[in-house]
Amino acid sequence: MTAYHPLTELEAVQIARTLGQFFPEGADLQCREIGDGNLNLVFHIADAASGKSLIMKQALPYAKVVGESWPLTLDRARIESEKLLLEGKLAPGLVPAVYHYDPALALTVMEDLSDHLIMRQGLIAGTRYPKFADDISTFMARTLFFTSDLGMNQQDKKNLVKAFINPELCKITEDLIFDDPYTDSPNNSFAPAIRDAAEALWKDGELHLEVAILREKFLTSAQALLHGDLHTGSVFATPASTKVIDPEFAFYGPIGFDIGAVIANLLLNFAGQEHWSEDAEKRSDFRRYLTDTIRDVWQLFDKKFRALWEESCIDRIASETPAYKEYYMQRLLQDAAGFAGCKIVRRIVGLSHVIDIDRIPDAAAREKAQRLALAIGTALIRGNRRTQSIEEVVDIALSAAAK
Amino acid sequence: MTAYHPLTELEAVQIARTLGQFFPEGADLQCREIGDGNLNLVFHIADAASGKSLIMKQALPYAKVVGESWPLTLDRARIESEKLLLEGKLAPGLVPAVYHYDPALALTVMEDLSDHLIMRQGLIAGTRYPKFADDISTFMARTLFFTSDLGMNQQDKKNLVKAFINPELCKITEDLIFDDPYTDSPNNSFAPAIRDAAEALWKDGELHLEVAILREKFLTSAQALLHGDLHTGSVFATPASTKVIDPEFAFYGPIGFDIGAVIANLLLNFAGQEHWSEDAEKRSDFRRYLTDTIRDVWQLFDKKFRALWEESCIDRIASETPAYKEYYMQRLLQDAAGFAGCKIVRRIVGLSHVIDIDRIPDAAAREKAQRLALAIGTALIRGNRRTQSIEEVVDIALSAAAK
Repeated sequence: MTAYHPLTELEAVQIARTLGQFFPEGADLQCREIGDGNLNLVFHIADAASGKSLIMKQALPYAKVVGESWPLTLDRARIESEKLLLEGKLAPGLVPAVYHYDPALALTVMEDLSDHLIMRQGLIAGTRYPKFADDISTFMARTLFFTSDLGMNQQDKKNLVKAFINPELCKITEDLIFDDPYTDSPNNSFAPAIRDAAEALWKDGELHLEVAILREKFLTSAQALLHGDLHTGSVFATPASTKVIDPEFAFYGPIGFDIGAVIANLLLNFAGQEHWSEDAEKRSDFRRYLTDTIRDVWQLFDKKFRALWEESCIDRIASETPAYKEYYMQRLLQDAAGFAGCKIVRRIVGLSHVIDIDRIPDAAAREKAQRLALAIGTALIRGNRRTQSIEEVVDIALSAAAK
Repeated sequence: MTAYHPLTELEAVQIARTLGQFFPEGADLQCREIGDGNLNLVFHIADAASGKSLIMKQALPYAKVVGESWPLTLDRARIESEKLLLEGKLAPGLVPAVYHYDPALALTVMEDLSDHLIMRQGLIAGTRYPKFADDISTFMARTLFFTSDLGMNQQDKKNLVKAFINPELCKITEDLIFDDPYTDSPNNSFAPAIRDAAEALWKDGELHLEVAILREKFLTSAQALLHGDLHTGSVFATPASTKVIDPEFAFYGPIGFDIGAVIANLLLNFAGQEHWSEDAEKRSDFRRYLTDTIRDVWQLFDKKFRALWEESCIDRIASETPAYKEYYMQRLLQDAAGFAGCKIVRRIVGLSHVIDIDRIPDAAAREKAQRLALAIGTALIRGNRRTQSIEEVVDIALSAAAK
């Protein structure tokens, strides 16, 4: 079983039995393949008698999106497992534990989080996550600070940059987020009803300038080791617990890209509240919860990142130059706003959508949500380099929704 | 002779004899070690009868500066030879030809340029280089554009970033250029007469903010594969020819760092013209030549880089967004001004100086040159993010000199 091949459930069980003392000898292991089959096989393996279970995630050598299939490196399994291990050290308890990694099979064996729900689904079901802002801000502040030139040896960091060069996964982001939505690309996908809004994106030179600048940051700015795909579908949550998963897009990039991903996906759910077109109170209540969460995420991140800077900064001139810290934090917020905007826009007109909006059954409400998301996304992009406070980000959403 | 050891002249000759048909069979080879012994051995091997000659450069496993010695990676020989080969492809005729590279011995065999002179020495002797601005602007435009996300496949570029991760050599720049001069570091070295000016640098918060921002760009901005040490001591020149040498500091960094190095070293020579304290006409004539050259270097670079963007840009959104090109070129100039400032300041108060200034025999003239260089350098740093044209850079030098 050493050469790479997609595992069967039987083979997955055989591997599970060899993993140290995880399952009792001779346990009656049950295995289900629970992945969506687009990028990975995901096996859930459980022993009912002992109550123990684990997840095996195996990378597939191709990606399938909307019927298309293209080859994709298995090296992403190494990147995912190495990033998970690093996150586990820097932000204990906020990622699944990794039990084993097999490079030949591109296989990572990790903690089973079946008691958690994908946060995107939870939000759609109206669940509130009172621990989320605190947890995700801790996760981001610690994983980003301690992999940046502020928080780790600057020569070791360069070798970490090298280990996380991730061309193929970055290419997906570069195309789908920072290119296709702004031109008449065959990869785009949007409802015929909003064709006017999509076409407006293709002709908007002011928007293109900002997107080009943000794209350049994504291509060149090696500020910290990012998660790289930190949307609410990459978070397993309960009201009391947050676990960040799926860091296969990890690479050294601009810190604001991770923060922007969190904000964007809360705002996409905000737009998706058009679902409650006939219950204005329910809609505005949940929207208030979402904007409060956005405010908390940024403010807690800002506070924690600054505290780490005070306590653990290894860069002499950064430590001793308070004006630089202010400049740096301001720029993180601006980058976060800009990247959030790009991530919203692509989910409406680009290849890959979110169910927060697509699942709205009523066509008129869905169109309203799509236009609202585009209004928020483009306003964030347009204004990103002038953003002074998180309140401006929240105001953009609230005033677009009030129209 | 396969295991690494510093070569003797005799061994160098033996290797030269094995290099294909370079020298005639049985040639009477003459060998001289002509390096300064600080970082590398440099052998000049010649056959008087055929008139053929070559250079063998072997990296030493340590660096010696002002008596201090510290270990230094031999991998820099690989970086140097690979960068030279790439430069030779992108900017033919502007670097020495590489004949052979031996990784085990950290040895590069290359074209002999003994008919050229190190440009810094030429400038000090009052030589003018009418081809320099055209050649160095071609060298920079082509090597930088075609290794950036504008001019090469963006996934291949990431693998080139990986191949040129260069922690130890970058560390030298990070310490000596972007840290020591702005604090009371034991590495600093300056004349007692200008202690007041050095101490002023240590307390200047406005300057520290700009240096911290430029330092961050050096640490994080992987715009293009830089030469990394492009001063006038890394240029072999005649009035009719320009050859860029010594790219061992090569890494992916901000484009403005290479441009700034060229400008800084022309400005250091400009300050060094205080040498002619009793011949104001000679001084101002040569200064006019230097400021004309600075203007030409930038304007020709700007013109050529824009032309490459028009003809060869592989990035869709960059190609189709003229405002982005303007923004990009403006920022290159601003970065170049800031980095030039940092490179000037460190040559006056930091560890490593330039003979353009240190060789001035008269103490008063030398002090005047040092203070002038500091005035120019700090003004460039302070104003870098507001710079609108190369004329402002020239004006800073001229008005500082007029005081």
